[in-house]
Amino acid sequence: MTDSKTEYKAKKTADSKAACETEPKKSASKSDSRATSSKTAKLPSKENFSEWYHELLMMAEIVDNRYPVKGMCVWFPFGFAIKKNVYGIIRELLDPDHQETQFPLMIPENEFMKEAQHIKGFEDEVYWVTHGGQSPLEVKLALRPTSETAIYPMFKLWIRSHADLPLRIYQIVNTFRYETKHTRPLIRLREITSFKEAHTVHATWEEAAEQVEVAIQRYSEFYRRLAIPFLVSRRPSWDKFPGADYTIAIDVIMPDGKTLQVGTAHHLGSTFAKTYEITYEAEDGEQKLVSQTCYGISERCIAALISVHGDDKGLKLPWCVAPTQVVIVPILLGDKEKVLEVSRNIESLLAAAHIRVKLDTSDERPGAKFYKWEMLGVPIRLEVGPRDIEKGVVTLVRRDGVKKAVPMEGLKDAILKEADELQTALYARASQFSEEKVKGVVSIEEARAQTEVGVALVPWCGEVDCGHQLETQVEANMLGEPQYQSFTDAACAVCGKLTGKRTYMARQY
Amino acid sequence: MTDSKTEYKAKKTADSKAACETEPKKSASKSDSRATSSKTAKLPSKENFSEWYHELLMMAEIVDNRYPVKGMCVWFPFGFAIKKNVYGIIRELLDPDHQETQFPLMIPENEFMKEAQHIKGFEDEVYWVTHGGQSPLEVKLALRPTSETAIYPMFKLWIRSHADLPLRIYQIVNTFRYETKHTRPLIRLREITSFKEAHTVHATWEEAAEQVEVAIQRYSEFYRRLAIPFLVSRRPSWDKFPGADYTIAIDVIMPDGKTLQVGTAHHLGSTFAKTYEITYEAEDGEQKLVSQTCYGISERCIAALISVHGDDKGLKLPWCVAPTQVVIVPILLGDKEKVLEVSRNIESLLAAAHIRVKLDTSDERPGAKFYKWEMLGVPIRLEVGPRDIEKGVVTLVRRDGVKKAVPMEGLKDAILKEADELQTALYARASQFSEEKVKGVVSIEEARAQTEVGVALVPWCGEVDCGHQLETQVEANMLGEPQYQSFTDAACAVCGKLTGKRTYMARQY
Repeated sequence: MTDSKTEYKAKKTADSKAACETEPKKSASKSDSRATSSKTAKLPSKENFSEWYHELLMMAEIVDNRYPVKGMCVWFPFGFAIKKNVYGIIRELLDPDHQETQFPLMIPENEFMKEAQHIKGFEDEVYWVTHGGQSPLEVKLALRPTSETAIYPMFKLWIRSHADLPLRIYQIVNTFRYETKHTRPLIRLREITSFKEAHTVHATWEEAAEQVEVAIQRYSEFYRRLAIPFLVSRRPSWDKFPGADYTIAIDVIMPDGKTLQVGTAHHLGSTFAKTYEITYEAEDGEQKLVSQTCYGISERCIAALISVHGDDKGLKLPWCVAPTQVVIVPILLGDKEKVLEVSRNIESLLAAAHIRVKLDTSDERPGAKFYKWEMLGVPIRLEVGPRDIEKGVVTLVRRDGVKKAVPMEGLKDAILKEADELQTALYARASQFSEEKVKGVVSIEEARAQTEVGVALVPWCGEVDCGHQLETQVEANMLGEPQYQSFTDAACAVCGKLTGKRTYMARQY
Repeated sequence: MTDSKTEYKAKKTADSKAACETEPKKSASKSDSRATSSKTAKLPSKENFSEWYHELLMMAEIVDNRYPVKGMCVWFPFGFAIKKNVYGIIRELLDPDHQETQFPLMIPENEFMKEAQHIKGFEDEVYWVTHGGQSPLEVKLALRPTSETAIYPMFKLWIRSHADLPLRIYQIVNTFRYETKHTRPLIRLREITSFKEAHTVHATWEEAAEQVEVAIQRYSEFYRRLAIPFLVSRRPSWDKFPGADYTIAIDVIMPDGKTLQVGTAHHLGSTFAKTYEITYEAEDGEQKLVSQTCYGISERCIAALISVHGDDKGLKLPWCVAPTQVVIVPILLGDKEKVLEVSRNIESLLAAAHIRVKLDTSDERPGAKFYKWEMLGVPIRLEVGPRDIEKGVVTLVRRDGVKKAVPMEGLKDAILKEADELQTALYARASQFSEEKVKGVVSIEEARAQTEVGVALVPWCGEVDCGHQLETQVEANMLGEPQYQSFTDAACAVCGKLTGKRTYMARQY
């Protein structure tokens, strides 16, 4: 599973502009190395989103895109630390009623080829292992693009009776897709390093439908914690996951107005159950086919996190995922020993309260330190100088620019309060941007104009023909019907029939 | 990195007996399914180690070996939970001065082929990806058997001056080896799902040598926490890691007297630095080659954990890694509501103290519950019955059989004390076994007899010729010179020359 088919049809026009495009680079020169050079480089303005994004990934040490295979990146330690915190939230949200597991990466060709609809969706994107050492393998092995065909033959063995249901598992694994389109770090990869895919099995179609709803609620909570606003829509029938009855997707509006699909949940009905013969003995003794769902999130959530919040100075990390939540910069004037002592005391105080704190005692000047920690998105900076100490305060600077003197007394609580307010401010700012980027339109012309800058909400009667015409004429993708909203009647932008339905349309990553 | 070459030459004689051997199994029948059937099955005696091991992995729900590719297993949720705790300890031990990262799985053929010695060690075992979709790839991609050739081209970019050193990173990833020998779950796999490989870079050979020592100390602490005794030896020159200056290895003696290599640390000197041109500017401005180390641990540590401690009733998990540390079994006689209430109170009390506790209120009879939780290795069971309540006690049963009535008052502290004692007892029992399995011998005949049942400590002058003769004539592997020990002079078992050196010899997994 899990990105719905949509992902594979991002428009060529949009993609060909990509500044983030990668090609195999055999030997990057030492001079453009890691943080060292970045200290002197300047981050492009976020106005030039594509360049900004690409540069920021290097300068903030998220991923290194110089690995010599196109579409495969190295996680820098700092990027990895963010990822660990972000996926920690996913685990926290799933663990109460899901069990974490791990399935093999390789899928034998015969198992992989069993589900016809599904394989049609993936066959052009599968990496094949054909040799072990010098010898050709008897059975070719696919690297999972998603794990239905690895997991479901085991579900057949694991599930015997209604007592085994519902079954809810997930795994966080690397998956592979031979993308022929432009690749882009964290967004369109050939190795997705951190694919969280959940797979659930239920006695009835209705219970599976409820589970899809639960999945979307969990994902919504996940993105709320990251202070990222999102759209929820039901993908049109021609864009659902290969083999699914339907697909609900979560999209984030990126700074350039294009949308990024950052989560999907699929109702699989009994399609795979039939193919892989997954049945259970019902309470009445009858053998019945199970109903299934799957839902997933990839490191695109990190791409969204970086893109939605960051600014011209670098990352802006929400408190909950920041590897360093508070940095202390001592201003070494006057009685330096005293300044250091107070700084160390604050460090101990905050560490004891389980705040991820760093005291920066490096040789850099304070200005260089501010620059560095802003680039890394640290939510709160404390400046401790002799004057602050005299007044019994520290200078607190939030990553959103808010600056104030805070009394030493009650410092910890003051910091936690500022962290809360920063989170609220982050979310408010992002929501305002996101809301401004969505606009209701009535005609194809308006939709075309709106999708140049953001997301159009278009009246659509729901007919497949009208949908295809919309995509062709607007030259944008249909994200699908907004969920949890109702609308007054309006004329379908194609056929003119009155309808209460709408669809989001956008250019997609 | 990291298993030294040794691993690839386990003796055919030993392996061919393997009851755990796997073959591609296209369709396992539903009747031998998961826990459900296991409840009625009986675990073979540990005397028949190979069968016991194989069965226990299924019955205790560690890994499912029925995945339809030889040498690749599925982690059951329970097994995964153990693994997560075990690798949590590794992270805890490394994180103070190592940074976690993640590198791509695929290595382009040209990079992979650069280091001649290294590739010679791995070329027969590498899986090759040759196709993306229907198209042949321009450059074949190797699935990492170990990540030197993926990581070191990036180190070349990351390291510029002495200020960048030392660099210490690690990753926990899946790696692949096309094993042509018998596979065995967690021990000899084609997909190693959880390879922790650390890679460090230093300014001098001596610093790298110190780091090898640090690595062995950390691994020693890791195995001590798991209450697993081990041998540390310096592998003979013909058995070091391909490309290394030398290899220090950690071996565990398994119940059948064979040894399992469960950790290795390699001094790589400047071999890879030369190949991948990893240099740094020294303080005097000169460009110098770096010195490197790498060291690794795989899920073999879980195989050792299971094998060393388990008994005829199932797993015996050390407190620190048990997914459930305490299980409460209510004995529902007399005033059932009262029994349940007291049980729930104990559950809350222990959970509040961050003890991983489960209250088993399932419909099974107490005997069935005891059986189940013993199989899963839960360290401490509490039985709560009406008589216990009357007396103000609970019945505490440790997984090693120790049983006592414990006053309700101070229960938490009593449990923690029992957990400590259980750990000590586990380690003492394992150490006694391990010590009894190692025996000093003087002749080849004695060595041959001893390696049938355990590990022989053999006088060896250190000459390569004598070493090869030892292996051939004893029909066992040389683990190498014991570290941190000194010996009186004795005659080399081959040439008779007086020597203070010894070597461990054993049949190896």
